[in-house]
Amino acid sequence: MKKTTLPCFGILILLLINYSLYGQTSGWSEVAPGVWRNVIGNPDKTDLFNSAGIKPAVEALSQIKAAEFPLPEKDIIAEVVNGKTYLRFPLVKDEQIFGFGLNFKTVHQRGKILNLHVDHYGGTDNGRTHAPVPFYVSDRGYGVFINSSRYLTVYAGSGVRKESPDAPDERDRNTDKKWTSRPYSDAVEILVPAAGVEIFVFAGPSPLDAVRRYNLYCGGGCLPPRWGLGFTQRVPTLFTSSQVVLEASLFEEKGFPLDFIGLEPGWQSRSYPCTFEWDRTRFPDPPSFVSKMKDMGIRLNLWTNPYVSSFSPIYNKILPYTGSHTVWGGVVPDLTIAETREILSEQLLNNQINIGISGYKIDECDGYDYWLWPDVAKFPSGNSAEQIRQTYALILQKMTTDLYRQKNIRTYGLIRASNGGGSSFPYVIYNDYYSHEDFITALINSGYSGVLWTPEVRSSKTSEEWLRRMQTVIFSPMAMINAWSSGTKPWSFPDVENEVREIALLRMRLMPYLYTEFARYHFEGIPPFRGMNLEPGFSFRSKTELKNKSLDENPYAEAVMKEIRDQYMTGEYLLVAPLFSGQTTREVILPEGKWFDFYTGEYAGDGEVIKVTPGLNKIPVYVRDGGIIPMMKPMLHAPSAGQKFDIEIRYYGTAPGSYKLYDDDGETFNYEKGIYSWRLIKVAPDKKGKITGSITKAEKGKPDNIGIVTWNFMSLE
Amino acid sequence: MKKTTLPCFGILILLLINYSLYGQTSGWSEVAPGVWRNVIGNPDKTDLFNSAGIKPAVEALSQIKAAEFPLPEKDIIAEVVNGKTYLRFPLVKDEQIFGFGLNFKTVHQRGKILNLHVDHYGGTDNGRTHAPVPFYVSDRGYGVFINSSRYLTVYAGSGVRKESPDAPDERDRNTDKKWTSRPYSDAVEILVPAAGVEIFVFAGPSPLDAVRRYNLYCGGGCLPPRWGLGFTQRVPTLFTSSQVVLEASLFEEKGFPLDFIGLEPGWQSRSYPCTFEWDRTRFPDPPSFVSKMKDMGIRLNLWTNPYVSSFSPIYNKILPYTGSHTVWGGVVPDLTIAETREILSEQLLNNQINIGISGYKIDECDGYDYWLWPDVAKFPSGNSAEQIRQTYALILQKMTTDLYRQKNIRTYGLIRASNGGGSSFPYVIYNDYYSHEDFITALINSGYSGVLWTPEVRSSKTSEEWLRRMQTVIFSPMAMINAWSSGTKPWSFPDVENEVREIALLRMRLMPYLYTEFARYHFEGIPPFRGMNLEPGFSFRSKTELKNKSLDENPYAEAVMKEIRDQYMTGEYLLVAPLFSGQTTREVILPEGKWFDFYTGEYAGDGEVIKVTPGLNKIPVYVRDGGIIPMMKPMLHAPSAGQKFDIEIRYYGTAPGSYKLYDDDGETFNYEKGIYSWRLIKVAPDKKGKITGSITKAEKGKPDNIGIVTWNFMSLE
Repeated sequence: MKKTTLPCFGILILLLINYSLYGQTSGWSEVAPGVWRNVIGNPDKTDLFNSAGIKPAVEALSQIKAAEFPLPEKDIIAEVVNGKTYLRFPLVKDEQIFGFGLNFKTVHQRGKILNLHVDHYGGTDNGRTHAPVPFYVSDRGYGVFINSSRYLTVYAGSGVRKESPDAPDERDRNTDKKWTSRPYSDAVEILVPAAGVEIFVFAGPSPLDAVRRYNLYCGGGCLPPRWGLGFTQRVPTLFTSSQVVLEASLFEEKGFPLDFIGLEPGWQSRSYPCTFEWDRTRFPDPPSFVSKMKDMGIRLNLWTNPYVSSFSPIYNKILPYTGSHTVWGGVVPDLTIAETREILSEQLLNNQINIGISGYKIDECDGYDYWLWPDVAKFPSGNSAEQIRQTYALILQKMTTDLYRQKNIRTYGLIRASNGGGSSFPYVIYNDYYSHEDFITALINSGYSGVLWTPEVRSSKTSEEWLRRMQTVIFSPMAMINAWSSGTKPWSFPDVENEVREIALLRMRLMPYLYTEFARYHFEGIPPFRGMNLEPGFSFRSKTELKNKSLDENPYAEAVMKEIRDQYMTGEYLLVAPLFSGQTTREVILPEGKWFDFYTGEYAGDGEVIKVTPGLNKIPVYVRDGGIIPMMKPMLHAPSAGQKFDIEIRYYGTAPGSYKLYDDDGETFNYEKGIYSWRLIKVAPDKKGKITGSITKAEKGKPDNIGIVTWNFMSLE
Repeated sequence: MKKTTLPCFGILILLLINYSLYGQTSGWSEVAPGVWRNVIGNPDKTDLFNSAGIKPAVEALSQIKAAEFPLPEKDIIAEVVNGKTYLRFPLVKDEQIFGFGLNFKTVHQRGKILNLHVDHYGGTDNGRTHAPVPFYVSDRGYGVFINSSRYLTVYAGSGVRKESPDAPDERDRNTDKKWTSRPYSDAVEILVPAAGVEIFVFAGPSPLDAVRRYNLYCGGGCLPPRWGLGFTQRVPTLFTSSQVVLEASLFEEKGFPLDFIGLEPGWQSRSYPCTFEWDRTRFPDPPSFVSKMKDMGIRLNLWTNPYVSSFSPIYNKILPYTGSHTVWGGVVPDLTIAETREILSEQLLNNQINIGISGYKIDECDGYDYWLWPDVAKFPSGNSAEQIRQTYALILQKMTTDLYRQKNIRTYGLIRASNGGGSSFPYVIYNDYYSHEDFITALINSGYSGVLWTPEVRSSKTSEEWLRRMQTVIFSPMAMINAWSSGTKPWSFPDVENEVREIALLRMRLMPYLYTEFARYHFEGIPPFRGMNLEPGFSFRSKTELKNKSLDENPYAEAVMKEIRDQYMTGEYLLVAPLFSGQTTREVILPEGKWFDFYTGEYAGDGEVIKVTPGLNKIPVYVRDGGIIPMMKPMLHAPSAGQKFDIEIRYYGTAPGSYKLYDDDGETFNYEKGIYSWRLIKVAPDKKGKITGSITKAEKGKPDNIGIVTWNFMSLE
């Protein structure tokens, strides 16, 4: 008896297989139309997709043109070496790739080395950013996603293998002028610091289709409430409820649109870390304050971060579910545990959501290493600090969205971070960086990564800058003035007050179009704001330029990529080409096909580079031939559920055009149950050659908020 | 039979212990006097100390004042969690820490987060640098070393633990002005991405003693050949042998000192990648060229990088020992394999060292990710790309030093990288960065990390900058003009030609002092160039200053550390306080004790901040009271083995002074066999109060190169 039991008793015997998987991947399984999955080694239990809780929109995926597995399987290599996973995906000559998250300075990613790491943006596109989504799209019409909650090192066409069939010729730097410090690389190589990983390939056929499949596999893009597309102002941090009411009435008085106001840390009794409850000196009666604001047509959004103060009513309850390290003295909830989420959820629900708070601005879930928990922190779930960091913002978004879904009320808020799988969350990423140019690049990149981004207006040195910034924020997912520190108001620069009002009202007028484009994000996966490289007929390729820098001072100064990062698409038809402070003129690259001036309907060009001098009060916007832009009258608040509104349908150019206008109640999740309508707008010459337009009625029993329809054929003589 | 053999046959059964070591370390063993070692978990086989092949100087260690284990053992915490090692070392209030390798902008490291990663310096002190030595020194008089070949993440007093007994009070940012974004942290925490690690603690009692113990444990600091401390010029890359000869004769003609010339890539038949053999068009007869140069008193140093061209004679032989990826088309030797090193060594020996080449400049062993092999590269040894990267420069230094040691000839060269354990290698780190101010910070930091650094002079925009840079490079381990690209010569700025010559000759005059200070680096572990914080009587503490930046533009703009990084010690007695381009005046912090002007002997101050306006031709240098500076006549070449030279012994101040002057043959490794002499110099008032000096003779049979001795009591009226 003793002999047989001894070696087994009290000792855990496991078979350790010291394996090194190598070589071509096989066994790709199509898990949804045009979406293939493969599992390498033993992936971590916590990954991005399960943290986001994605629910693939399979039916919508099947609507995209069918496509074969888009890459040669034999050239996708995966290997697990000493507990790490090495991945390789092929690239061909001249192939361009985009994505890898919310980059701020570059759109083209081929040749880059990135460490995908949730972080604040530190000024360099090195992979450390608010949304380091491990997804890339090729101009060859496919996408690749790495479903890992680790810090991934990506060589996006940088390393050169000895065995590569495309290995570049060796050159002698001494004498050969063609010598280059960065020889041709034929692969994307990725290091996953885990003994396995799940990977996905998304088919096209077009690059936009690959993006659509990614978004739809994540459940479809978010559909904000209608009011979310209105204007928002964030007020100084120590404002009291009466000051907030006064602020709202000033907007009304001045004729500036306003749909929601954001309260900053001062709404809480203590913050940084947070109590998650109202400060009763500044906000003596939150329910009646919220209701008074609602009566004025204004919703409220609350700033918070996830770190719990010892003065919070939930402190003792949540303490056992928190990590080893604190952030500003607050404990860090391990949100990968259901109980933790319940404790926090209950507080938000009872104290804020149930009295009518419309959403949150969730701060500091991105990082800045000096503020956050370190990578040596430990959490009760056993998930590593790295995994918690990579998934924290996803979990926060899912948790709060679910709270609103339970109440069947949509929310729309702000978040400092996101990651792969987050397409469906009604959150817009913001940060503390403030380069206007780079904000536009981020807006472009958001479209490749299933996230939303606001080029928020915070403050400006000049009225010119103020107006230029306002002109771009209205062509973005959230039209926000974030004045928590500066206290600036839309009319703070009197010499451009009228221009600012006009542009703000343009945002409101565009609401039917923007709301429809968000519906397409949800139902079709098409990002409402996106880069030119996803547009058909756009053929500009990146070029490299050697900056004339002294090798003595810095031999690392190398050729830099010249790329288009100052114009982008807003929805199906609008090409937006902002000007920045100091500019009076700029070039715009018009894709193939005719384009027309948004404001005048005049012909602008076709597949060419035009130079424009629009004046300070205009942001150049162009409409594709046949473009249909449904607009509404300038209102100060978004239409509420059931409120009828008249529309003006603008039509540009001469090509026959059609557009499906989306409608629903604008406030609930009933659209998830099919309660919405699509109304077909058509514009074409009739038999006599006269341009006429038509719009179908809403199906019986479906939402129907459209009042009077007027037509405006912009390009007629 | 079948029954018993089946479960064992053909299957490897291992016991997998799923352990999580936690808590206080114990079992510290004193492996040398004042040096304790501990092993956590299962360390990697490849580490820094074994890559460097250190041979602890145990006898020298025992000469330092005995000390107890310098930290509370119970506060040193180590834990292995899911294959990673978490380390924690305590810090107390107001403790200052220094080190963590070759940083360029900061000296004080407390509060920093660093990812120790061999790399080129990218402009930010984030741990990625040429020598990211995982060693830190505390002003409390101890040092800590992490012997790992992985990328380490270091929280040098940044994270705050929930359970910390010193946890700071929670504050309300809304209303409490004392709220800080970086609350007090009481520990250095380190993440080692491996399932174990070897760690060392070095006792003081002083911080300098901790540094000394570290250097001595690594075998003692390097002792360059005497000529290594002379002047060196690097010539344009495509120079021919006749052009090099001409360059040398120009130096002679102009009266500028010169001991060795560096040849850049063009000496090789192909380079980037390298053939490791002479280009016969530019260098038709290498042996006679080398010998001709030697006759002129000039040695030759050869640039190379380790990447092997397919045109190299060693290509086929080394190919099986190379990694999966190429660098500029060259294969990457896996130098952790003995056979690989032998193949490369043989080529260097036969082609270059045996004909009299004095040393190498080994380039591109640091990184710049875009040029190097990626972290997914694989190597035949099975060592990871990360491990190869962290140890590559150590192995290259050891390999080449050993080649010279076999020939009993010292070498002195340049290296782009180093790491922990490298103190004894006769290599000076250089790079492509070119901030004069930051070069001085690097010089200061080199002294905390057992490496040498040259603030090389490459080119200048103005004659002022040229002279200011020349003034600092002579107070550094290698007095180099690196003109491979610019072709600049010491006399290229005619209006400061005389001043440059004078400062270059001062370098030569200081040789007896500098050579002795290097001997002390070797025998006593004292770095010849070092920061003020290692000096007794220096009490300046770092201060934080809040830069008045707009929170709107960047809320991350935080208090910055004000620290002393513009003055340093050269050897025992000299305090060097450089001026930079644009400066005409500066402050100098004099430690406690009297200090005297190096040039005039005048009293300068005592434990105070003085303001000086030295004029363009002077770099402020101060001598400690009682300081003795043995100098020689200005020679154009360092004395060769056995060549007698006269010395002038300068004495400063009035306190009794003594100094041990070192001597040996200056060229061989015979000093390792005890063939050297120390001669005691004493200066003190005699019975009549008259200052007199004395110097002992060399012991019989020991080196004795000193000719006539003259005395210069600098501070007498």
